[in-house]
Amino acid sequence: MNQYQKRLEKIYDWMAEEGIALAFFEDAEGKRDTSIRYLTGHPCDALLFLSAERKNLLAPWDINLAKVFSRVQAIVPYNDFKREPLKAVEFAADFFKLPSGSKIEIPPVTSYPDFLNFIEEFPGFDIICRKESTSSYVKDLRTIKDDDEIAIIRKAADITNIIISLLEKNVRSGKIKTEADAVMLIEHEARKRGCEGTSFDILAAGPNRSFCIHAFPSYTGASFGGQGLSILDFGIRYCGYCTDVTLTFAREANNQQKKMVNLVEKAAAAAMDKIVIGNDISLAATAVDKLFAKAKKQMAHGLGHGIGLDVHEYPFIKSSFSGKWVLRPGMVFSIEPGLYDPLHGGCRLENDILMTEHGYEVLTEASVIWL
Amino acid sequence: MNQYQKRLEKIYDWMAEEGIALAFFEDAEGKRDTSIRYLTGHPCDALLFLSAERKNLLAPWDINLAKVFSRVQAIVPYNDFKREPLKAVEFAADFFKLPSGSKIEIPPVTSYPDFLNFIEEFPGFDIICRKESTSSYVKDLRTIKDDDEIAIIRKAADITNIIISLLEKNVRSGKIKTEADAVMLIEHEARKRGCEGTSFDILAAGPNRSFCIHAFPSYTGASFGGQGLSILDFGIRYCGYCTDVTLTFAREANNQQKKMVNLVEKAAAAAMDKIVIGNDISLAATAVDKLFAKAKKQMAHGLGHGIGLDVHEYPFIKSSFSGKWVLRPGMVFSIEPGLYDPLHGGCRLENDILMTEHGYEVLTEASVIWL
Repeated sequence: MNQYQKRLEKIYDWMAEEGIALAFFEDAEGKRDTSIRYLTGHPCDALLFLSAERKNLLAPWDINLAKVFSRVQAIVPYNDFKREPLKAVEFAADFFKLPSGSKIEIPPVTSYPDFLNFIEEFPGFDIICRKESTSSYVKDLRTIKDDDEIAIIRKAADITNIIISLLEKNVRSGKIKTEADAVMLIEHEARKRGCEGTSFDILAAGPNRSFCIHAFPSYTGASFGGQGLSILDFGIRYCGYCTDVTLTFAREANNQQKKMVNLVEKAAAAAMDKIVIGNDISLAATAVDKLFAKAKKQMAHGLGHGIGLDVHEYPFIKSSFSGKWVLRPGMVFSIEPGLYDPLHGGCRLENDILMTEHGYEVLTEASVIWL
Repeated sequence: MNQYQKRLEKIYDWMAEEGIALAFFEDAEGKRDTSIRYLTGHPCDALLFLSAERKNLLAPWDINLAKVFSRVQAIVPYNDFKREPLKAVEFAADFFKLPSGSKIEIPPVTSYPDFLNFIEEFPGFDIICRKESTSSYVKDLRTIKDDDEIAIIRKAADITNIIISLLEKNVRSGKIKTEADAVMLIEHEARKRGCEGTSFDILAAGPNRSFCIHAFPSYTGASFGGQGLSILDFGIRYCGYCTDVTLTFAREANNQQKKMVNLVEKAAAAAMDKIVIGNDISLAATAVDKLFAKAKKQMAHGLGHGIGLDVHEYPFIKSSFSGKWVLRPGMVFSIEPGLYDPLHGGCRLENDILMTEHGYEVLTEASVIWL
């Protein structure tokens, strides 16, 4: 049984418990859903149908691509339905010979106007659209990485670490002078090492732009690594799986900047103290919030997030998300405390953590680099 | 009156006609909405509230960034509402002193489960969520570019054309040998010329991978421009505005490949014959479908799409979208016929068109390049 089949079996079991005859997933521009890749290997635009009879059907946009990448029982070109979900669902209901009155679960992101169309189009079926759904069940499953996934993520982290070393070396030597130089190095080294690409638009912000959480534009030709604080937030994607790290480069920092860096490093340590199997993951965020509050600072973003096929996925690490996720072996997530000041620039430090049976492993080697 | 104010005035008028007291827009991961940039200049994550009293309020994630980029009357950090739309709407209703029973229009992409939350949370207001909305009205407005936008788009096209020349030169000289080489040149030249970045992940597919519509991964270290057909689909983003072009490089093409290229070039010409002010835009797609059908071929994607702050926006050019959009001055869109064969690879030719008072202008200079 391949890894996709193993995952599908769990979904079929869940559907049976919930009495769902047909569930569908949609991966499309504006509503990406990497769960289709998780369950079939197909990496882009498609609908995926799963039936209570433990059968599946993929309706990909690019049929040539699907033939190469997907492991499914049946493929029908999405174009046969003019790329209209309603028509594809109608086909699937027929294909799987759904008895009338069956429950069809549509994605929880389905808009209210689209939901009304489904209700109108399928009076013979019980259309359900809810937050706690087959889709969210898959997302919950994905919080615990299986062995295949962990092996890939380790490899992705290794490549990330090689790139971190190269970045440090080249900023120190003066070979990287601009934001664009730093980005080009990452793009180039990632592809050279067999990555699919970067996991998001790399954020490279020299001292004049590091005051933003996410610099805009994400990088420019401006100087990088000069006097003050420079932020470099990047990740690579290897066999679908993402890393996400942030380095801060500090040069001739003033007292305010030193204080920020010091606080961010302390915050990272305080967070890691709470990363213990069985702990509510939000405790890490609460610890950091407290530490910053003592220094009369506040962090404008969450402390971290799950990483996998999506660069941001469950669990999310914020103090307001208390009671949602308990730390368990197989979880992979980032911890990324940061502080930003309109005058002095910003500092963020982000690493990726894997929970194991014995505790945690910090997979990546990002740090504050003093120039 | 700046360009944002001019645009907002039209939206306020429309809201008044529709009796809408408060409309909100959301730009967030998973549901990007560049209309916030169109109306305020703010380029990323935020909520925007517009009131019937012709007032506006921005709730950005990154307050430092908003202070630099946005032109609005009021700014409140989204974090004040823990980044929960419901809480922000509650604040806005209070801020604008909405009488009870007022109509609040929420984005048409709001999911059904979220819609139920709104209904439950705001029993004192009339919550509306519909396809034909303030949001879709803005998208319709955006199909006709104003003078400010056209000036930017012309500049974006100029930069694109310089890059096209460089690509041709460097593939011919052998300096570009791999997919990655082609991509690096584009990334580098775009930033050097002041672009915010590329408008999407560049698709570079050498002869072995050009059989896909959208190659996966989008580019690799594989050879580019060798024997057969190579596809290069890219665009740049300048002051927010996108271009989108596709070049095909052909070397020692076999008869099947020559036939595909010939058909695609004929399709582009057939499409342009239908690009006449007042025509239904879908006529161009119907002409291409007919041409391909005669040759027993079929195109797996639409013929083109509007371009602006989004790389894919209204109007969409497909024969099944007949009756939706009439060609009018100020429209900017791509025309991109393509054919793909698992054995012989693919060919796509894409250029960007501006409709003027007198007809059309082809802004970009993509072509099939014989090596």
